[in-house]
Amino acid sequence: MSMNNLGIVKRNIERPDVRAVAHLAQFGSATVHEAMGRIGLMKPYMRPIYVGAQACGTAVTVLLQPGDNWMMHVAAEQIQPGDIVVAGCTSESTDGFFGDLLATSSLARGARGVGIDGGVRDVKDLSAMPFPVWSRAISSKGTVKGTLGSVNVPVVCAGALVNPGDVVLADDDGVVVVPAAIAQQVADAAQARQDNEAAKRAKLAEGVLGLDMYDMRGPLEKAGLRYID
Amino acid sequence: MSMNNLGIVKRNIERPDVRAVAHLAQFGSATVHEAMGRIGLMKPYMRPIYVGAQACGTAVTVLLQPGDNWMMHVAAEQIQPGDIVVAGCTSESTDGFFGDLLATSSLARGARGVGIDGGVRDVKDLSAMPFPVWSRAISSKGTVKGTLGSVNVPVVCAGALVNPGDVVLADDDGVVVVPAAIAQQVADAAQARQDNEAAKRAKLAEGVLGLDMYDMRGPLEKAGLRYID
Amino acid sequence: MSMNNLGIVKRNIERPDVRAVAHLAQFGSATVHEAMGRIGLMKPYMRPIYVGAQACGTAVTVLLQPGDNWMMHVAAEQIQPGDIVVAGCTSESTDGFFGDLLATSSLARGARGVGIDGGVRDVKDLSAMPFPVWSRAISSKGTVKGTLGSVNVPVVCAGALVNPGDVVLADDDGVVVVPAAIAQQVADAAQARQDNEAAKRAKLAEGVLGLDMYDMRGPLEKAGLRYID
Amino acid sequence: MSMNNLGIVKRNIERPDVRAVAHLAQFGSATVHEAMGRIGLMKPYMRPIYVGAQACGTAVTVLLQPGDNWMMHVAAEQIQPGDIVVAGCTSESTDGFFGDLLATSSLARGARGVGIDGGVRDVKDLSAMPFPVWSRAISSKGTVKGTLGSVNVPVVCAGALVNPGDVVLADDDGVVVVPAAIAQQVADAAQARQDNEAAKRAKLAEGVLGLDMYDMRGPLEKAGLRYID
Amino acid sequence: MSMNNLGIVKRNIERPDVRAVAHLAQFGSATVHEAMGRIGLMKPYMRPIYVGAQACGTAVTVLLQPGDNWMMHVAAEQIQPGDIVVAGCTSESTDGFFGDLLATSSLARGARGVGIDGGVRDVKDLSAMPFPVWSRAISSKGTVKGTLGSVNVPVVCAGALVNPGDVVLADDDGVVVVPAAIAQQVADAAQARQDNEAAKRAKLAEGVLGLDMYDMRGPLEKAGLRYID
Amino acid sequence: MSMNNLGIVKRNIERPDVRAVAHLAQFGSATVHEAMGRIGLMKPYMRPIYVGAQACGTAVTVLLQPGDNWMMHVAAEQIQPGDIVVAGCTSESTDGFFGDLLATSSLARGARGVGIDGGVRDVKDLSAMPFPVWSRAISSKGTVKGTLGSVNVPVVCAGALVNPGDVVLADDDGVVVVPAAIAQQVADAAQARQDNEAAKRAKLAEGVLGLDMYDMRGPLEKAGLRYID
Repeated sequence: MSMNNLGIVKRNIERPDVRAVAHLAQFGSATVHEAMGRIGLMKPYMRPIYVGAQACGTAVTVLLQPGDNWMMHVAAEQIQPGDIVVAGCTSESTDGFFGDLLATSSLARGARGVGIDGGVRDVKDLSAMPFPVWSRAISSKGTVKGTLGSVNVPVVCAGALVNPGDVVLADDDGVVVVPAAIAQQVADAAQARQDNEAAKRAKLAEGVLGLDMYDMRGPLEKAGLRYID
Repeated sequence: MSMNNLGIVKRNIERPDVRAVAHLAQFGSATVHEAMGRIGLMKPYMRPIYVGAQACGTAVTVLLQPGDNWMMHVAAEQIQPGDIVVAGCTSESTDGFFGDLLATSSLARGARGVGIDGGVRDVKDLSAMPFPVWSRAISSKGTVKGTLGSVNVPVVCAGALVNPGDVVLADDDGVVVVPAAIAQQVADAAQARQDNEAAKRAKLAEGVLGLDMYDMRGPLEKAGLRYID
Repeated sequence: MSMNNLGIVKRNIERPDVRAVAHLAQFGSATVHEAMGRIGLMKPYMRPIYVGAQACGTAVTVLLQPGDNWMMHVAAEQIQPGDIVVAGCTSESTDGFFGDLLATSSLARGARGVGIDGGVRDVKDLSAMPFPVWSRAISSKGTVKGTLGSVNVPVVCAGALVNPGDVVLADDDGVVVVPAAIAQQVADAAQARQDNEAAKRAKLAEGVLGLDMYDMRGPLEKAGLRYID
Repeated sequence: MSMNNLGIVKRNIERPDVRAVAHLAQFGSATVHEAMGRIGLMKPYMRPIYVGAQACGTAVTVLLQPGDNWMMHVAAEQIQPGDIVVAGCTSESTDGFFGDLLATSSLARGARGVGIDGGVRDVKDLSAMPFPVWSRAISSKGTVKGTLGSVNVPVVCAGALVNPGDVVLADDDGVVVVPAAIAQQVADAAQARQDNEAAKRAKLAEGVLGLDMYDMRGPLEKAGLRYID
Repeated sequence: MSMNNLGIVKRNIERPDVRAVAHLAQFGSATVHEAMGRIGLMKPYMRPIYVGAQACGTAVTVLLQPGDNWMMHVAAEQIQPGDIVVAGCTSESTDGFFGDLLATSSLARGARGVGIDGGVRDVKDLSAMPFPVWSRAISSKGTVKGTLGSVNVPVVCAGALVNPGDVVLADDDGVVVVPAAIAQQVADAAQARQDNEAAKRAKLAEGVLGLDMYDMRGPLEKAGLRYID
Repeated sequence: MSMNNLGIVKRNIERPDVRAVAHLAQFGSATVHEAMGRIGLMKPYMRPIYVGAQACGTAVTVLLQPGDNWMMHVAAEQIQPGDIVVAGCTSESTDGFFGDLLATSSLARGARGVGIDGGVRDVKDLSAMPFPVWSRAISSKGTVKGTLGSVNVPVVCAGALVNPGDVVLADDDGVVVVPAAIAQQVADAAQARQDNEAAKRAKLAEGVLGLDMYDMRGPLEKAGLRYID
């Protein structure tokens, strides 16, 4: 009987077109973040549990209570193939909310990964599956199952607002959240950006300077940059 | 031409009934936070710049860029009497986005305070006004005015989602955000809670134990608590 | 049926002679810490909730679970006049485990203060009582009552081992823990140190250098210190 | 002539039965931590210097002074085959207290690893040996040899109390401390837990939900969880 | 016989004209920091030990070793009236390098304050003198006197380079370092800035918006800012 | 027209003899740091983006503004083969100032690596090149190009002063800065130290204790160390 989004599980969430998600999956988090106008990024304390981890999917969101992973089990039932579970917490906690067993279950449900503003454990097993997880900590600390949170409500995870159904794209560089409504638009912008970068990279590799390629010399001089010997 | 909420100023925001705000203003942040079901709190690194700071008002939200306070000036125009400016930032920054001059302007517009997920400066002057500010840092570091953010879009400030028009209540204990739609409901719940606490406080002051007043002995025993000598 | 000190309340703890505690209460935490050989100090993130807070008493210890203050209520019953409640937590948490009501109850039981490796709330009320608390955070965040910890077992609080009955001395400089068995011995050493300091202070105030007063010039030269112009 | 455990080396410490240690060595830190009732864990800032590091042995404890590793040399003499050196520090320090030479010496004495609430260096060499170390930092910063600490006294390392002779088990998930007296009991509980998990894992892999396997639906409903569409 | 600036005390340092220092002393740290072009600021973790602390003087610099305050005593001899002692450390330490006795000695030598990238203790006594100190921590933790550092060499304190003789200006907002060579020039720029601010403040107090006073509307529109309803 | 080192690019910097740099490149950062007398080290939060990263070169320095990487492009032009770009920032920022494109350009210019007191992105690409980077964070967060900093002025990077032309040596253990003027002298001292260590390592591997090899027993006894059983 909460006034807010507490103690609630939303079953039907709108997921974006799978083609938009598939398109986004082709880019890195930095490219997508730029394509969105440099917003939507989780804080850099979110790190993957193994080098080379990569995932792109639609968010099933979880609001956790500190030291309590009950809602991770509730969320597992809401996972559809292609989803990524994204969990925020009502206060900062590094406890191991997620591990080997939940990963096994999540994989069976078709999850592509987990982002958790808390701790994760069994990272050796998860790396072997492999089941990619981005988290603020790695910790053996177990959790209780005693207090309600919610599933599929808007949550804040590592400083980023995540709505259920948003596209979550994560790799070695971080975790970026793309609102479902603009997923295809962002994918297109990312594509344009990436197409553009190959030529730039080639030029830079040949020794052309960014100063020249981006026409920065004029603006720098205007801003007052002085060269001295 | 951003795909997202970047480069936007929303002028007309819905503010809750002033009576609900006035009612909420009578309670402490802890009481309100409990009344909401223990959600909606900013992280505890948000501290007031002086002891005894207290404010309750409706949120004008700002999305800042790191090291850039341009949007604080844009936001100033959107302040209406009774507002509190709440600013998040696209990445962590402790720079002094707000100080004496902006506070003078904000006061002239009728602002009741500022909550900023960044730094503040001129705290001596602000304390003398007094103009209450809650921030993650105090820093003389000045900022540029070069990159757009937004005003009155949903922002994440210190881990809490804030929508324009939400009620923000801040005191020595922290900063809590009450969604506009449930402001009166939360005020009523806070009132009930507070009415209830006076009697409890009296009992505890007489030496009655919480163990007895809250009937905890049974549940504790059931949970396995053992007393040894 | 825990193998360890979990789910246990020890009722009879040995407290040191009240005269030793009273003697220790006359010194600052820095003096006592030096008298002990520079050990026994909690980490400096433990800060008092108001300027000038000061307390010295015997430890009733609590092992908390994150986001759960059930054991604080269990501990309240074990408080005897002159005690200080010292609470550690099984994982890091800044939640508000202690506030106005528990302070009222603690005061009624004769407690002299609280040290908590977590958060505290209602600091305005606590400061008015005044009831001194040292904590790692101030936070409105409420807690549940669902999981057992323990009372009067050895706990680690802010990096310091605290046994029930140890003398805890706290002031603006920090929190130091004196094992009960050496309380009088440490008080004597602190007294000697303090007696000694008055004369030193007078000399230094007259302009005598520590270099000369402590005969440091020889050892410095031997260590290789060179003066240049 | 310290009043406390400073300037002391305890030579004869009681180590638990090697079979209990060997048994514990078969489990992960998360399993053992759960088997103990979710206590005894070091803070998650303790990280292994290479992926896949694993060690289980009996604790030789060290109390270090900041920026001073003299006691690591004193401790080396107390190492017996199968030991793990666990070092706390009287204040927080990230200096490189341990490196290639001490690791060579420790290996020669039969040590299985090191846990240090400070910094370690020469991690490339240590990884090549391999000699596993868990630490709060990696740092080239060298240390002096000038101030006494102690060896084989109770120490607090990364928030955990460690008594000499305790079993220390460390892997990718963290470092857990098992009191010597209950080593076999914990090993048995861990075994039971592990035996139990294989069946659970199989079920979850088949798609059975934790909600059903753990019979959580009733308790969740009773707690007030609501499903909405 | 160090190759570097270690184990050295430079006795004759060049101090800027006292009039420049006196002029700078009239401004706040934010104004001076702006006047310098927004550089020269220590990190915001440097906080004064009491509200309203203020100091401006010439730097006597100290390079400390972690947990060792020997050089603070060596530095005391180099203090001339009007100096501020600024201490960096070869690695991060929160130990109490400075307290009541050293403050008494420093006051006797004419020091105006201390900035220390470490801990300070006896803050109650120091606040009563008053002797202003800016530090990263408050800690009872005592230090040894065993390893050489240096006095009056360039040091990094809280991220800022400080040369002996630089002007250090500190208040509630932070600590700013002004190179001796440009002290008067910066004072003049600060004066111009301050003169300018009074008129601005008056305008803002009357309700004029920064948007108009600073002519921001054009640049904002050009940058693409859109107003929506 | 800055009074300080802002808005300046120094083109001609003095680099040390390449033989000294080549000699230094043969040692680890810990050895070099010891050879310098245990100073000159960046804080341990500077971590390489991949295991085994190693670089030694001469510093091209950059002073960045938060969230702005304009100066990285300006710096690229100043790179000569064998250089390492070292960037400090006027306030703390974890934004991704450096990535794939700048690395491509830097490689083309002959850079050996980058040390940045901020964030880096595209770490997968950089690791594949391989182009070694040491940073305080990994972050997809993009930056603007709007505010001047400087190139080849003295900068503070992660707590260490770096002058243009200094030798920067970085590996898994950290980043050490050797002033150009003493590069050869430090290389010689490092060589002596390393020559000396091989024999020590062999002795320790045979089981000789550091206590005996370094003749510590006498000093320890003199300091008061007591052995108990």
